[in-house]
Formats: sequence, C-alpha cells, structure tokens
Amino acid sequence: MENSKTLYQHGTLALLVPGLLTGTITMGELLAHGNTGIGTGEGLDGELIILDGVAYQIDSKGNVNVLANDFIMPFANSHFANYQELTTISDATPAEFEKVSLDGKPNSNTFFSVLVKGTFSYMKTRAVAKSSRPFDTLAKTAEKQSIFEAKDVTGTLLSYYSPALFHGAAVAGFHNHFLADDHSIGGHVLDFKIKEGAVGIQVFDTLEQHLPITNTEFMEHDFSKDDVASAIAEAE
Amino acid sequence: MENSKTLYQHGTLALLVPGLLTGTITMGELLAHGNTGIGTGEGLDGELIILDGVAYQIDSKGNVNVLANDFIMPFANSHFANYQELTTISDATPAEFEKVSLDGKPNSNTFFSVLVKGTFSYMKTRAVAKSSRPFDTLAKTAEKQSIFEAKDVTGTLLSYYSPALFHGAAVAGFHNHFLADDHSIGGHVLDFKIKEGAVGIQVFDTLEQHLPITNTEFMEHDFSKDDVASAIAEAE
Repeated sequence: MENSKTLYQHGTLALLVPGLLTGTITMGELLAHGNTGIGTGEGLDGELIILDGVAYQIDSKGNVNVLANDFIMPFANSHFANYQELTTISDATPAEFEKVSLDGKPNSNTFFSVLVKGTFSYMKTRAVAKSSRPFDTLAKTAEKQSIFEAKDVTGTLLSYYSPALFHGAAVAGFHNHFLADDHSIGGHVLDFKIKEGAVGIQVFDTLEQHLPITNTEFMEHDFSKDDVASAIAEAE
Repeated sequence: MENSKTLYQHGTLALLVPGLLTGTITMGELLAHGNTGIGTGEGLDGELIILDGVAYQIDSKGNVNVLANDFIMPFANSHFANYQELTTISDATPAEFEKVSLDGKPNSNTFFSVLVKGTFSYMKTRAVAKSSRPFDTLAKTAEKQSIFEAKDVTGTLLSYYSPALFHGAAVAGFHNHFLADDHSIGGHVLDFKIKEGAVGIQVFDTLEQHLPITNTEFMEHDFSKDDVASAIAEAE
C-alpha cells in the first residue's frame, strides 16, 4: 500500500562523514518505498533526484543520466508523492521559500517535503565526483565537486525538511535538490531565486530509518571519533 | 505482515523533557506494531512492559495492571518478537550483561533488543507516579517515583539498545524494563544482578519513528530551549 505519511531513509548522513560510501541499497529497492526522492551514488557518485518514479543522476560533468534499478547508493530518501497545494510564490529568496514552507514558524518538529515547480531566475547547484576505494572522508571527497549556475531556468526543486533532533541521521532543516525540465542543470542546490513557482507541501508523521546492518564496515565503525554534526553542517 | 526487523517507536524521549506528556497513541495502535515493548502512560503514568502481546503497567504503588487497548501513551516502543538464542549467563552484573549483548564490542550502530528470562539475585526498579495537567518537566515529574527492590526473583528483563546517533529520539545505549513472573516487582530497571538467565537477541535494521503530528502542543513546542541530551541521560 502506498503510504504518503512516511519518509523512507536508507543510511544516515553520519555514515558519509568518515567515508562509509559503499552502496548498500539498490535503486529498485529505494523505488519500492517511493516515487520521489534524493540521494547519492556509491563513492558520492553525483546527486540524485527521483521525480514521478524516474531516478536521475546529475554527475560532476553536469550530465543528467537516467538510473537503472541496479544502481547502488550509501544514502537516499524516498516517499510516495501526495503534495498539497500550498501557495504560489514569486521573486523569492531561499529565506523567503523557507518562511513560506514553515508557514511563518521558526522550525518544524516533524519531517516534511516541499516541491516547487516553476521558473528560477537564478539557480546554483553542485555535484560531487565519484571517488574510488579506499574512500576518503566526506569533507575530502566533497572537495571534488563541480559548481553549476543558470539564469531563468524552468524546473523542479525537491526539498526535504528534518527536525533538529534528527541532525546527524539527516540534515537539520532544508535539503534541496533540483532538476531543470530540459536537463540543462541539476544537483544539490546551493543557492536560488524563484521567479515564479507553485509550492506543494507534504507532511510526514513517520521516518522509516533503514540501516545497512549487513555492511561490516558500517557495523564496526566507531562513530564516537567523528565530529558528525559539524561535518554535515559544513558539507551540506 | 509481521516484520521482525523493525523497531516501532511512537514519540521521542525528547518530548518528555519539557513535559509534553499527553497520550498520543493507544495501546491498541501500539500492539498493531508489535507484541513486545516498553513505554509510559499519559502524565508518566507508570512503567509499561509488553510481553507475548499482553501490556502490563507497573504503577507507583508497585501494582501490576493489565492494560486495555484504549490506554494512551506519550512515548512507547514495540516490535514483533523473534529473538535468537545468544547464550546463558550467570552471576552477571549490568556491565557483564551489556558486554555479552554487544558481543564484546564497545557499542552498536544499529538498534537491537535483548530478552533475559531467568532468576535475578538482585533487582532494583522504579515507577513514576502519574502527573496531572498542567504537566511539569520530566525532571520534576520523575521526582515523584517509587523505588522497588527484590532478591532472588524470577522474571523477564526486556532491553532495547539505541545507537548514540539517535540519543534524544531514544536513550543511547541500553534501556531496560522488568517484570517478575509472580508480578511481585517490575518497572524501569535501575540495577540488577542476574543469577542465571537465558539471553536472546533480536537485531533490527529499521527504526519506524512515528511522531504525534496531530498534537498541537508537540508541533508548536520550541525544543531549542530544552537541554534534551543531558535531561534524558539524567532521568533515564
């Protein structure tokens, strides 16, 4: 049964910090938990965005690739889309987008997703280049990233909000990925300006947190030595 | 379908800290997610333990009450029991019990449950007395608790282990509840010595974290002012 109140998460952002970048879920498995989502490939192989059941990878060269079901990931989110029309916004900065999404409140105590379909007067994204084994830390791996910029681009911004209590498992606050309709730009969003967009919101009451317990590296890693919270805040 | 790899959690320990003690799940709903579990009632109404599908409350007078399906709770865990025989231990302190449960490792990166059936040469528990509205903080409410002690008591110790990353949502490390076979003692375990016991372990790959999003008090609370981590460490 499609459950539109549940956000599925495989892995944690914490495990990326020390470089546990082995792919531990397939795209096929992820899509069983949703038709909408974000993630990254093994070795931080690009930025992923799933829209209408189709999984796209924005690689470090800026190519947009459709992913097969055997593509593997260390970290990903998915959910079944059931967005409620919230409003339309125009000439909106990230801060204004967040204010609208939070309905004026300073924060949220539950997980939710926001989808903006529209025209962006400015879009700045990044995509990380895939590392090979032995994997380095998140900070080190993230140095190999490309930055992309575009003006007046039409597309979809997919945002997930996580409560502060779950920082480390996820990124506290908003985490945004983007894909242009013409695939000219996409990736993990660093900055943007919305020219005009329709905003939909979907509030979750459940986080289904799946952990890669058959992965020995993950299970035997000593996370107490990683400064997870600040490393994530810096890299994301 | 019964999923023995999933630990269900309603609410978070964080919400108890500022005194968000309203019951937001019924026992009937909790039992739909498992036949084994722990929790507390609205207003911290005693300590709960679910064994073989039967929900027991140990109240602050030391009575063991069987709970009906309409009993409500602010926080609870449940799962479908599928313990694997691990070992038998004798003359074991809490530290020795934890060492055996962790298979000698310093910690675990996933959630698991341990069940000990046997005889305890010493058992020390507590049960909190129910508060009425307006609810006070966890620290203040927990002052109204009774302490119980027993020697040479036969019963079941139900333990849940949560990884450090999830401290705040749950208690990092072990969280133990107990019920004597003859119902002479039970509650949240403060100290114990195992005389002889059979130890079963059940490892989860998923935390299903359910949040009370229809509860306005929870949704509008500003957790940034609560020192959640240390308050939980102190009270639990």
